[in-house]
Amino acid sequence: MKRIVVLGSTGSIGRQTLDIVRSFPDEFEVVGLAAGNNLDLFREQVKEFSPKHVYCIDPAGQDFTGTEFTPMADMVALDNVDQVMVALMGSVGLVPTLNALKSGKSVALSNKEPIVMAGGLIQDYASRYGGEVLPVDSEPSAIWQCLRGEDNEILRLLITASGGPFRTAPLEEMENVTPERALQHPTWQMGRKITIDSATLMNKAFEVIETHWLFRVPWERIEVVVHPQSTIHSMVEFEDGSVKAQMGPPDMRLPIQYALFYPKRLPNSMIPRLDTTKSHALTFDPLEPDRYPCFDLAISAGKKGGTYPAVLSAADEVAVQAFLDAKIGFMDIPRVIDRVLSEHTSLPADKPEDFLEADSWATQRTVELTSK
Amino acid sequence: MKRIVVLGSTGSIGRQTLDIVRSFPDEFEVVGLAAGNNLDLFREQVKEFSPKHVYCIDPAGQDFTGTEFTPMADMVALDNVDQVMVALMGSVGLVPTLNALKSGKSVALSNKEPIVMAGGLIQDYASRYGGEVLPVDSEPSAIWQCLRGEDNEILRLLITASGGPFRTAPLEEMENVTPERALQHPTWQMGRKITIDSATLMNKAFEVIETHWLFRVPWERIEVVVHPQSTIHSMVEFEDGSVKAQMGPPDMRLPIQYALFYPKRLPNSMIPRLDTTKSHALTFDPLEPDRYPCFDLAISAGKKGGTYPAVLSAADEVAVQAFLDAKIGFMDIPRVIDRVLSEHTSLPADKPEDFLEADSWATQRTVELTSK
Repeated sequence: MKRIVVLGSTGSIGRQTLDIVRSFPDEFEVVGLAAGNNLDLFREQVKEFSPKHVYCIDPAGQDFTGTEFTPMADMVALDNVDQVMVALMGSVGLVPTLNALKSGKSVALSNKEPIVMAGGLIQDYASRYGGEVLPVDSEPSAIWQCLRGEDNEILRLLITASGGPFRTAPLEEMENVTPERALQHPTWQMGRKITIDSATLMNKAFEVIETHWLFRVPWERIEVVVHPQSTIHSMVEFEDGSVKAQMGPPDMRLPIQYALFYPKRLPNSMIPRLDTTKSHALTFDPLEPDRYPCFDLAISAGKKGGTYPAVLSAADEVAVQAFLDAKIGFMDIPRVIDRVLSEHTSLPADKPEDFLEADSWATQRTVELTSK
Repeated sequence: MKRIVVLGSTGSIGRQTLDIVRSFPDEFEVVGLAAGNNLDLFREQVKEFSPKHVYCIDPAGQDFTGTEFTPMADMVALDNVDQVMVALMGSVGLVPTLNALKSGKSVALSNKEPIVMAGGLIQDYASRYGGEVLPVDSEPSAIWQCLRGEDNEILRLLITASGGPFRTAPLEEMENVTPERALQHPTWQMGRKITIDSATLMNKAFEVIETHWLFRVPWERIEVVVHPQSTIHSMVEFEDGSVKAQMGPPDMRLPIQYALFYPKRLPNSMIPRLDTTKSHALTFDPLEPDRYPCFDLAISAGKKGGTYPAVLSAADEVAVQAFLDAKIGFMDIPRVIDRVLSEHTSLPADKPEDFLEADSWATQRTVELTSK
């Protein structure tokens, strides 16, 4: 029985994680749950899974009979916890992730921002304290699956991108994109922030940064290929020229379950299967940089390192919210982020505080720039 | 240094095997070479690789200075041999394959007929005497690569088929297909027999039978998908619904090298790489049984087992040659094979002689039927 903690249990990935737990009731004990402000759902989850430890931002959720209110950073370090699912949003996941690793836990990391902000520090903690970081996102999970059993050199990682809702839109219309339109992702059902990040391809750049750190692959060996069907989740090319791809319908429960049960694969009727009985085509196109200015901006911040990626991530979070609130236009997202990055001077970036400080500064600065 | 024997060194796979040996001169010692009647090329190969043991059907090739003439069945069992590449054509590969396994050797098996004829016996020899059978064919190699590091149940093997040159030809024209037209394979450069087998999809049925035995997967879990680009060489679906695919340009040197160096993958500039910089599509269609009557015929013989698959393989060999010699039409190939199979009564099929006897009988009977 695996004893788990789910941080962000009421979000999209948190709920799907509990779907998997529900499918295998004898395999898991839910030791702790943490959520934000969705109190009604959180109350149901606490009732159903009876965690000993709970955390909730909403003060009304801090007082459940039979549970202990436990801050996330402490919950992840409890002796009776085997694995932590970090399904939070934004930089709030950094400290719990680091604390879990410091306690030698297995961390299933869905929350991209911590590894984008501080990938080097996270991998450093994992190797220093004997914890491990397992990807949950479908693209890094695909790479992880392709690398299974291979201790051979990686020639190239090929990360697929759906291209989002504006893959074929006329470039001149991109300035006038509405939030409603940008929220219509062609293949994946996801939260609002990540859906906008998919439309700008910021999300894809985050995955490049994530895979750079997770698999320690040099930047120049990571490529993005536009693949609108989202069937191939990513590919690995090995030194002999052989390419392996991992495929599946666009459904997060497969990579979530893979991270929870690794190395075992278990049948789960809830997970849809790829239909290979019908004629179909998988298409691949090069990425158009002009269409997705966020992409190059983000990769360049990732390569600069230091606290630039933390600034990138924080500025993006605020800029996307400002776009959703109709304060800025769609193509202002990269402009604002670029400006904030250009105003930043990196901190030493050798301790968690540096990243959090850069995150605060960038958040505040982006709020200023988008409130005018 | 790996000490190898190459049986069928002057054929397409044999020559490409020696290309790989040539690329890594410090990794291999060629202990033995065996060929048929292409004496000029065989002489060059013997001069270049200086094998101690040679075998050649042509009597003029049985007498090279500094070499010992050694029958194939003995050559594969020599103490100083680590791996045997069986790149022969037809049933002649059966006894050397079995002998190599009986001596506990690693057998890289390119020659499909032995495993189609007597897959159960081959796997029985491998497990009884501690030898191993490694696939060389690109589709089984793809499956083998996808299974690397996975000890999870296989839900489905998806073998890809280019569909050959008549994938979209009007069905009524199939009766009048000429050998010249049938020899024009859209994606692969191969020998004549296998090219015709690819046009009838007999070759694909052989691969289904081969993978059934190699990976011990039940018949109903093996499917064929038509994929004209031959980029994805095959796929494996695991119990959790995750599908892995192996891809590469259609070039046999990759799977040959993989079998020779497994588990190592080594860079080799001779092996072409997949071009992912251009827009392209990979398409998939269900197999049309009416277009490829050989396919169902062959699968049904495979499932019946006994000596039926040996009869299938022998009848196909003769029928394809009769088609190439313009003695029968393209669509007569399945008719003749069907007739020979229907006249056969299985032998016990528990010793090599049974398979060879069935092979002889079917060869003779098919010659009779196609000579009229």
